[in-house]
Formats: sequence, C-alpha cells, structure tokens
Amino acid sequence: MSGWDLLITNVHLATLAEGTGYGEIRDGAIAVRDGRIAWLGPAADAPAHGAANEERDGGGAWLTPGLVDCHTHIVHAGNRSDEFEARLNGATYEDIARAGGGIMSTVRATRAASEEALLRQSVPRIAALLAEGVTTLEIKSGYGLDLASEAKMLRVARRVADVLPVRVATTFLGAHALPPDYAGRADEYIDAVCAMIAPLAEEGLVDAVDAFCERIGFTPAQTERVFDAARQHGLPVKLHAEQLSDQRGAELVARYGGLSADHLEHLSDAGIAAMKVAGTVAVLLPGAYYFLRDTTPPPIAKLRAAGVPMAVATDNNPGTSPLTSLLLALNMACTLWRLTPQEALRGATVHAARALGLAGEIGTLEVGKRADFALWRIARPADLCYAIGFNPCCAVVNGGKWRAPLVAA
Amino acid sequence: MSGWDLLITNVHLATLAEGTGYGEIRDGAIAVRDGRIAWLGPAADAPAHGAANEERDGGGAWLTPGLVDCHTHIVHAGNRSDEFEARLNGATYEDIARAGGGIMSTVRATRAASEEALLRQSVPRIAALLAEGVTTLEIKSGYGLDLASEAKMLRVARRVADVLPVRVATTFLGAHALPPDYAGRADEYIDAVCAMIAPLAEEGLVDAVDAFCERIGFTPAQTERVFDAARQHGLPVKLHAEQLSDQRGAELVARYGGLSADHLEHLSDAGIAAMKVAGTVAVLLPGAYYFLRDTTPPPIAKLRAAGVPMAVATDNNPGTSPLTSLLLALNMACTLWRLTPQEALRGATVHAARALGLAGEIGTLEVGKRADFALWRIARPADLCYAIGFNPCCAVVNGGKWRAPLVAA
Ligand SMILES: [Zn+2]
Ligand SMILES: [Zn+2]
Repeated sequence: MSGWDLLITNVHLATLAEGTGYGEIRDGAIAVRDGRIAWLGPAADAPAHGAANEERDGGGAWLTPGLVDCHTHIVHAGNRSDEFEARLNGATYEDIARAGGGIMSTVRATRAASEEALLRQSVPRIAALLAEGVTTLEIKSGYGLDLASEAKMLRVARRVADVLPVRVATTFLGAHALPPDYAGRADEYIDAVCAMIAPLAEEGLVDAVDAFCERIGFTPAQTERVFDAARQHGLPVKLHAEQLSDQRGAELVARYGGLSADHLEHLSDAGIAAMKVAGTVAVLLPGAYYFLRDTTPPPIAKLRAAGVPMAVATDNNPGTSPLTSLLLALNMACTLWRLTPQEALRGATVHAARALGLAGEIGTLEVGKRADFALWRIARPADLCYAIGFNPCCAVVNGGKWRAPLVAA
Repeated sequence: MSGWDLLITNVHLATLAEGTGYGEIRDGAIAVRDGRIAWLGPAADAPAHGAANEERDGGGAWLTPGLVDCHTHIVHAGNRSDEFEARLNGATYEDIARAGGGIMSTVRATRAASEEALLRQSVPRIAALLAEGVTTLEIKSGYGLDLASEAKMLRVARRVADVLPVRVATTFLGAHALPPDYAGRADEYIDAVCAMIAPLAEEGLVDAVDAFCERIGFTPAQTERVFDAARQHGLPVKLHAEQLSDQRGAELVARYGGLSADHLEHLSDAGIAAMKVAGTVAVLLPGAYYFLRDTTPPPIAKLRAAGVPMAVATDNNPGTSPLTSLLLALNMACTLWRLTPQEALRGATVHAARALGLAGEIGTLEVGKRADFALWRIARPADLCYAIGFNPCCAVVNGGKWRAPLVAA
C-alpha cells in the first residue's frame, strides 16, 4: 500500500510545471502524503499506485496550485474611503494632505491600533483572498515606521497564519515612507530602519526586506544601505521600483540578487537585462495602475521577450490598491496589459512563489511540493482570468488538508 | 400595537431619498409590514411606535436599499473565455469570426441549451450578484434571435425569480444582432422581431423592449419600428445607444418616452437635452468600457450638469462585460469616470429603479416602498465604492424577508 493520506480524483489538473503550458492532465488525480504531493497523473493510473486514508471526489473541477499573492500591505488599520470620496468630490491632494490624509493617516491608525485590533481589521480582507484559493500570502510592514509599530505589524502578519488557513511570508518595509518626525532627515531615518532589522530578524519576524525607491520615497543610495543591512542578516531583498519614474531600482535590486522588483511601469531595458541575469522576478501590480488611472504600462512585451518571470499580485493597500481579489488582478493583467491567461496564472502561482523564494516548495503541482491546491468549478483554466468579479473556487487544500473555501468577510 | 412584521435595529440607514445626500440616519431602525416599509427613523423613536413579530439586530451594519442591476444579459449559455484567450494569444477578430466566435457562438450555445440547462448555467452568475445585495435584476433576451429561443430565454429569466430571492424585470432584445439566416435582410428580421412582441407579451414575458442601435447593430429607422411595435402593446422601451458612435439613439428613445438610454460613450449634447426633457435615465456600463479598453468615457460632467439621472449596471454578458459584481461596477464608475460614491450608489439603487420603471416601488428607503434591503459591514457608505473585489454584505431583506446573504457560486 502506498500510505497516501489524501487522494483527490475526478479533477482536471493544471500543473503549471515549467515548459508544459498549463500542464493539463484531464481526468486526473493527485495524492498527498505528509502534506506533500506524493503522486499525480491520469486517474486511470491512480489505483495501480495505491489507496489513501481519505478520498475526495473533485466533482469534475479543475485543480491548480493554490494561488500565491506575493505583494500585499494587507495588514493595516482603517481605510481611506474618506479620502477617495473627498477626491471625487473635488478635493485636491493638498486639501487631503492638510486634512491629515494620505499614507500618514494609515500610519497613525496602524500605530494606534492594538495587535488584536490590527488582526481583527485585517482578517476580513485576508479571508476574501483565501475564499479565492490563495494559500500563500506575502504581507509587508511599513505603516509603523518605528520599531515597536513595525514589530507589531509583523507579529500580526505571523498570527494571520495561526488564525487562518494560509502560509504567510513577511517582508520588512521600514523604508516605505518618511515619518513626520524625521522630516528633512531621511538619512537618519534610514539609520533607524537599518537598526530595526536586527531585533526584528532575531524575533523571527522577517522573511525578506523591501524598500520604496522613488523620488517621493527613498534614494537608490538609501535603498542600498537598507539592502546592506539586510545582507548582514542573511535576508533576501526586493524593491518597489520604477513605479513613477526610472530610479534604476531594478538594476540595484538585481545587483543584490533580489527576489523581485515590483511595479516597474518605468523599467528600462538595462533594468530588464539586469533582472534577467540575476533571476529577479518582475512583480506586476495592475490594481494600483487601475486605481491610480496610470497610463504607462510596464514593458510587458520586453519582459516576455527577455524571459524575465512575471508575477501578478494584488498590492492590497488602502491608498493605491484597495483590491482584495487576486483573480481580479489576473483579469486586469490580461485586460489592461495583455498578459495571456497562462502568463497571468503562472504569475499568481509559480512565478509568485519564486518572488517569495519559495519556488522549490509551492507554485506548481509536482511531486515533493507542498500540497496547496485550489479547486475551481470552471470549464477551462482561462476562465480564471476571463471572469470579472466571479469566484469559482469550490474547495482548497492547505498542506494536504482539504477545506471548503472560506466565505469572505 | 403597530403590528409590524419585522423591526431591524442597531443599523445606520442610508435612505437615498431624493435631495438628502446619502440620507444618513445614524443609529436608526426600520420596520416592515406586509413586505413594505412601515416606518423608519432614529432607533430611539422606534419603541414608541410599536413592537414587531420579528426583531433583528443589525450589529451596527449600514442598511441601504437593496441594489438594483438594471442592465444585464446574464441568462446565456457558455462563455467566451476561449475567445478571450485566443485574442490575447494573438488571434485577430477575423480569425475568431472564422472560427465561429463572437456573439453568434453565444447564440448557438443558447439556442442549443434546454431551459433547464440555461437556468442552471445562469444561476451561479446571478448568485454572485445576489451575494452582493442585489434584490432586483433586469435580464435581457437577445441570444435567441428567433421566437422560440427568445421565449426560452425570457421564461428562464422569469424562473430565476422562482428559484432565487430576487425580483426580475425582463427585457425583450430581439433586435440585438442579425442572425446569419437573415444576412443582408435586416429589415425582414426587424419584421420578425416586431411580430415576436405579441406572443411574448401575451405570455407575460416582457416588461420592456430594447434594441441595439449602432452601425454594427440596427439603424434608427429599424429601431423605431421595434419601438412602434412595443408601443402597440403598451410596453416601455429602452435602448443600447451611442456606445460606439453617435446614432442619435438617445434622442430617439427619449422621443418614445423611453425608460433609459444605455452605454452613451458617444452621446451628444442634443441627446442629453432630449433625455432630460423625457426623464430618460442614462445607464452607465463601465464593465464593457473596461473590458473593451475603451478610451471615450460617457459625458458624465454634462449629464450631471443637465440633471439627467445616472444609473450604473454590470451589463453582464459573455462578449464585452463578463462582470458579476455590481459593487465593482460602482468602483469602476468612480475610478474610471469620476462619479462620486454617492452618485454611484444612487446609480445602483434609486436611478436604477427608475431605469426599470420601478421608482415608486424600490430604490430608496421610504415608507410604502418594498422592503428590499442590503446590510453592509462597512464604516461609511463610500466604502461600497472604494473597495475593489470585496463584498461586505452581511444580510439581505427581500420583500420583508430576512436572509443571510447567498454565498456566490
Ligand atoms: Zn506595494
Ligand atoms: Zn447590453
């Protein structure tokens, strides 16, 4: 006997394994042992391999790797619907800044919230993602901007994985914005950020380090100092790069062997070449592009031609992407930027896993990988990218454990 | 005693009554008798009015009129994700037409489907709308294009209201596209369409009559013939107008006292003036604009200035707006076209009701109106338009009957 813990039959598989297209196996089956994929293939071959403690009938659903949302700021307090409404009612950015709006309003709310309150407010948003088959989620800090508050955000991010069926990758983004008490002293704030890394890392709160390299953020030189501090602690880096202008951030993060460069609307050819050499993933964030009514898309065709892996994520955040649907991000990537459905789906599975340094663990259906699956009531994989605002997820498997999908909110 | 059937307390009301802004009543209560609103006001005043058979604690939710999706083609068979994918993989419109794609593929699938199959395929899409607080839904025919198939679609639309908690308004859209067997004989097809109205109306299947007036659809003269036939049967009219070019369709439908002119990206000043005089609602369909990557928005500022009521709907259809989220349509209307959240919310309640000729029945919280409500776990009404892909609906009331929200799909 095989000793399988779980065998799922009556499913079509989309393995998304390298070089296989969708990796379609119609009328397939997949088996799990010890939380990992033990076998997969045509259902007709499964009985020959063995029996399982638990058998599930997939009801003809499509089964894909669990989705991976590799770029979010989903742990935060409050929202900015007031600002959204004020702007639509004619307020200028200056009006809103004078009224205490913008990112600092989220920083104030997040600093003021208890760990419990921060968790409670974040859970409905995260549950919305999980209801759509997300099994791994990246969560950034960056609304604390002091050691205690950044630690609080990252602790909440860790606790998410205790209270919800999801794997969480944490990213320290102390270099997200300059707190008002450091006005005019950005270099001193970067000193403080660098000094936060050791205590946060020692507490086990940091899987990666990120920064916002932009004219309205931090300079390449400041970013480099943050990356050096990360390297001292053996932490991988990633970067908010080239969203509003070309700061050569992609080249910078590639030089550090970074996991990903994210946004990239103003990415140069040199940045693409550097990312290709370094194996740095291009994380595309169409939600922010949509919400900001941006008109400069990232250089998708060039990234494709260069063979830079493209991931797609929600960028969930209250200011520029209040998006809690990764499926909708896939539709936006296809509709607005002309990714193919297959590229988009790879972008929310295997390439997203790679952007988190987890490509060996998750992101495809391959023997030995973690048994994180999503099951979908769809006719073909492209349906996941085509529908707008529709959730066909009918079951999820986390580490080999079958669950009906969470109901959002 | 008042004899109320239902009293909901611990809610904030947004009545959306004319001239009240959101019509906010914080810490309010609302009472129902015989399926209609019997009383509403500050909760403190409710006990003085009477007791109720059933009392519900809203848990601090916001309570609005149930949402109204006033323009959909949601009853149809199949989808067009294959075409979506083919196009993104480089196929031209000609390639797709040669392969039998486009609207005729939906017509073929819809004609081939049994009434049961058509209902079964449409229910998950409709359930997704209902999970977001939709209590009234317009459904058009138009993928049958012969009497039997149009009747089948409209019968399915009627049956939706039997199997799901929603009120349905049906619209006969025989003049949607020219079926291939009438190629080159559009006027003859219009004769056939006009002749369909009597039997369909006699069967009670038609609440309104619609047409697609466009260079690639039917001419104003042909549209007029359909409207004349509708008038003979006492049926109100509406029109797909000015989506791709100015055909003076808005003026035409206004001349017939039409309920609505829909799409309107190329609406002229004369069209606006005619709609204003006639009381014709402008139904805005941002899903199609988004999905088609259109760049000409409807003249929102001019419609606003003229005081033409603006509704917002999903336009759910497989070819140009596979959108099953009315909340997302609201966000698109705000984000892409700069409607205010209040305008957008009016657009999916009171103005949508008016576009269906139901303004006296639904669309606001006012005594005497039908007790169709949605309850939302939000901080303020603007949250409904701000969030992208998030469903905060926590309960729905249909005709005075409380239900937990449907889970989509
Ligand atoms: Zn970000
Ligand atoms: Zn339509």
